[in-house]
Amino acid sequence: MDRMNEPVLARLQHLMTLREEVETLGAGPWTPAADWADGDAHLTLYLDVPGIDPERLEMHEDGGLLTVAGERAAPQGLLSAERPAGVFRRVLSFPREVLPQTGEAQLAGGVLTVRFQKKHPTIDVRADVQDMRDR
Amino acid sequence: MDRMNEPVLARLQHLMTLREEVETLGAGPWTPAADWADGDAHLTLYLDVPGIDPERLEMHEDGGLLTVAGERAAPQGLLSAERPAGVFRRVLSFPREVLPQTGEAQLAGGVLTVRFQKKHPTIDVRADVQDMRDR
Repeated sequence: MDRMNEPVLARLQHLMTLREEVETLGAGPWTPAADWADGDAHLTLYLDVPGIDPERLEMHEDGGLLTVAGERAAPQGLLSAERPAGVFRRVLSFPREVLPQTGEAQLAGGVLTVRFQKKHPTIDVRADVQDMRDR
Repeated sequence: MDRMNEPVLARLQHLMTLREEVETLGAGPWTPAADWADGDAHLTLYLDVPGIDPERLEMHEDGGLLTVAGERAAPQGLLSAERPAGVFRRVLSFPREVLPQTGEAQLAGGVLTVRFQKKHPTIDVRADVQDMRDR
């Protein structure tokens, strides 16, 4: 019984060591949360990137896919770490067709907002707006 | 067969409607990720609060507990929503003893940083700093 458990225990120990190493590095790699919002003429991406170094934030659009990558450092002397740190890289597809290379990005309050021109702007704009106001 | 499936389909339809309603509201309530870091004389909290309205951000310390609350609005016209929205309220306990009411907060790049004076500053400060530089 003891002999059979040995490899399991060794494996567990190994996993715990790995886990400790990962925890020391911070909460590990991250996938920033994204929202897509539809407007009359624009499609907008919102990406939560708090504490990101603007110098390390990259974005490019290629073949209908949008890649956003960035990095942030973990604080020194961590006692507990829930916040992901290090490098992220996220590839997003557009939920609506957009005109290529029309993205206008701004970074404010830790949120990256990128606005694209829609290929097919929404018709009946006034009615939609009025409808939302009436609710 | 068809009759047996009817309630299941009705239930599925109901669930899909519910899901749509939830998605329209955004990703639901949120728990901002927190890090605690230990310094020589200070204990520091880092809280990810991207896109938070600074006017709606509240913090108070009571009996060794720190409560942080805030709110952010979901974008209009959401097509997909991963980013949590609405109100958050998080109660944190200090991982090290701090001197009461010494928290100094700043909000930058979507990260709330609060620095507290430690009750028992770390001894042998020079040696620690030197040790870290040597690594």
